[in-house]
Amino acid sequence: MSDNHGRVINFGAGPSALPLSVLEEAQKGLLNFSGTGIGIAEVSHRSKEFTAFVDQVEKNIRTLLDVPPTHRILLTQGGGTAQFSVVVLNLLARHRLLHPTATPEETTLDYVVTGSWSKKAAEEARRLTAGHATVRTVVDARVYSKDGQSFDNVPPHAEFRFSARPALVHYCENETVDGVEFAHDAQSPAAFPFDRLLETAGAGGGALVPLVADYSSSFLCRPIPRLADHAVIYAGAQKNLGPAGLAILIVREDCIVDVDAAARLGAPPVPLILSYKQLADHGSLYNTPSVFAIYVAGLVLERMKASGGLLYYEAVNKRKAQKLYAVIHEGEQKGLFRRKVQQGSESWMNVVFEVLGEGSENKFLEGAEQEGMKGLKGHRSVGGIRVSLYNAITEPEVDKLIAFMTHFMKESSSKSEVNAV
Amino acid sequence: MSDNHGRVINFGAGPSALPLSVLEEAQKGLLNFSGTGIGIAEVSHRSKEFTAFVDQVEKNIRTLLDVPPTHRILLTQGGGTAQFSVVVLNLLARHRLLHPTATPEETTLDYVVTGSWSKKAAEEARRLTAGHATVRTVVDARVYSKDGQSFDNVPPHAEFRFSARPALVHYCENETVDGVEFAHDAQSPAAFPFDRLLETAGAGGGALVPLVADYSSSFLCRPIPRLADHAVIYAGAQKNLGPAGLAILIVREDCIVDVDAAARLGAPPVPLILSYKQLADHGSLYNTPSVFAIYVAGLVLERMKASGGLLYYEAVNKRKAQKLYAVIHEGEQKGLFRRKVQQGSESWMNVVFEVLGEGSENKFLEGAEQEGMKGLKGHRSVGGIRVSLYNAITEPEVDKLIAFMTHFMKESSSKSEVNAV
Repeated sequence: MSDNHGRVINFGAGPSALPLSVLEEAQKGLLNFSGTGIGIAEVSHRSKEFTAFVDQVEKNIRTLLDVPPTHRILLTQGGGTAQFSVVVLNLLARHRLLHPTATPEETTLDYVVTGSWSKKAAEEARRLTAGHATVRTVVDARVYSKDGQSFDNVPPHAEFRFSARPALVHYCENETVDGVEFAHDAQSPAAFPFDRLLETAGAGGGALVPLVADYSSSFLCRPIPRLADHAVIYAGAQKNLGPAGLAILIVREDCIVDVDAAARLGAPPVPLILSYKQLADHGSLYNTPSVFAIYVAGLVLERMKASGGLLYYEAVNKRKAQKLYAVIHEGEQKGLFRRKVQQGSESWMNVVFEVLGEGSENKFLEGAEQEGMKGLKGHRSVGGIRVSLYNAITEPEVDKLIAFMTHFMKESSSKSEVNAV
Repeated sequence: MSDNHGRVINFGAGPSALPLSVLEEAQKGLLNFSGTGIGIAEVSHRSKEFTAFVDQVEKNIRTLLDVPPTHRILLTQGGGTAQFSVVVLNLLARHRLLHPTATPEETTLDYVVTGSWSKKAAEEARRLTAGHATVRTVVDARVYSKDGQSFDNVPPHAEFRFSARPALVHYCENETVDGVEFAHDAQSPAAFPFDRLLETAGAGGGALVPLVADYSSSFLCRPIPRLADHAVIYAGAQKNLGPAGLAILIVREDCIVDVDAAARLGAPPVPLILSYKQLADHGSLYNTPSVFAIYVAGLVLERMKASGGLLYYEAVNKRKAQKLYAVIHEGEQKGLFRRKVQQGSESWMNVVFEVLGEGSENKFLEGAEQEGMKGLKGHRSVGGIRVSLYNAITEPEVDKLIAFMTHFMKESSSKSEVNAV
């Protein structure tokens, strides 16, 4: 492994693997960024070299995701958890300006709860808007789970109950902890029910529907379905895009509002650095941004463009996920593995399963680590195995994991046969 | 310069120079952090290697600054500007819990305004607390300036008017834009009037005085005078400590309060990631932190410890500033330069002056750049020259600038003599 700087394969859920070529480029940038004679961690965010770099980052995101001119692309510090609060404050301000006399009961925030992160987002909304608004659960996926308490599915469309005039509707596209993801095929029963939402929440007429998606762990793994129907899409960078400390926001113009005017009408005050308008008015450079994280994200975006864009990544990611689910299925037939997510709702990015039998999971993790594969332990709240297949994980790396799993199954089967004798 | 990776001397005000040895170490860490086989921008913030690293960062800050056990050290995202809002929300919550029935008029936030940043902090407090509190100016240094409108001094102690029971008292120790700093010699008339504050604001008895200092651009350049008398000290990392995207907070235990309990009593709601208590309860790891920035800061701290700690840096920084002010003084005698800050209030970290004569400043900047010195342009709001002398700037680098300035003076003098003939 010496040609590889002693690096292992990192299947961690985030912060997560970055392409080696990007890291090698970043090594150079640390000492001298763009011929300035100054390293990227030292360069002024107001320098012409860095502002040009930021412009290019925005352009590349716009091109890769085909973001329409109705939407702004903003870069900010923090990750998904910060955005749980930010989106509430900004969209509550928007709602207040549209409906200045709405009571807390009439000011509804709709949350689709399909996993640990969307549940957490709803909890933060409830905490932050106490006395100002009413947080509703559109649907709770646990009700439709196999055991009645796990997040293992996207519920049937008929079970989604949207408000007629919500301040926001929030969903999490991919649940990193639980491995549940909305299907991208519009015909799938596990797709997000866009039409149902637009019928209900758009029924008031006039204002656009404030649909919000947390795309943290599936951002840029493939195109975003019906992007233009979203009001806000946000994503922490530390999965497919770059280091921790950076979030990308795609915000429709009608959601960029004067939060101070809203506060004068009774909406909660918004810290300046959390205001979409403040970010947008200053081209994401109101205060010093997370310069290094933006830089690495920029290198990743250039690489993505050169590799063929999102259709390329979609094809590769689909293959990676399909072959991994196939071997898990094989193990399930043999009584060695158990899938945790119901068919059709499985994530491409975070594949979760259990290894059956006492001590087997530890054996699995140790065996994988011995072969140079790390980050496979499931989230501490749910246990099991989690394989994160972000863009930087190559197909040969997945093949290596699959070879290990196949070997592991063979070993386990022969042992149980011996025991059975 | 090829042995130096084409690097120039970076006198920029922030993000700013980092030690070359730290950057070279960080290059290695980018590919493989602490023998994990995973790069620092990819490693889980919950890994035992990274949590141990964070613990050591906190310990090193505590040791270097001699932080007493009454104060917690917290790491968070964002920089100084974010903390303008954060400190207001948390200390307003503290005040509400102490004085549940205080009217907005009785809830005062005291701001000492000695430069652009403290002015901005006060403006954010005013914006954020409209209807909840009253923001007062303790003193405005412009009143005592040479031209009646610039920030060029620390005002006389007798002019500081503190409230009797403030929710917070805020000052900015070093004003990065204006080059004004409080003197560290307690006997100096330009020292912060700690005793005057404690007499007035402590007169209510009981509760500790909520003194807040923005130390962004002078953090770790020397020991902090009367650190234990502060309630909150905050600093963006991107001056003496590390890359942008990280702030260090030193918070006295009585300021770590239940913001939700305060909100139920009418204080503004606080986004979870901005709550001191949330940070403290999770050892600064509630959500994914700015891992790379923490890492580089950690390397800088190790280097500081090895170099002899803050007394060493204090001695070097003092020499650097004194010799630079001496040559500016020399230029002033010759009518070529003009100091902008009144004697006694000059910053060690950001030395500001003007080069007299039309076009002279550009000539100065171009000449310096030709000799490999960059980042000398004053902040766009005030113009002139600004030399930032953060810890990573070595004495030989300052000597090189001084040699250039001496040469520049010689050239300018001989030209004016020619013109005079």
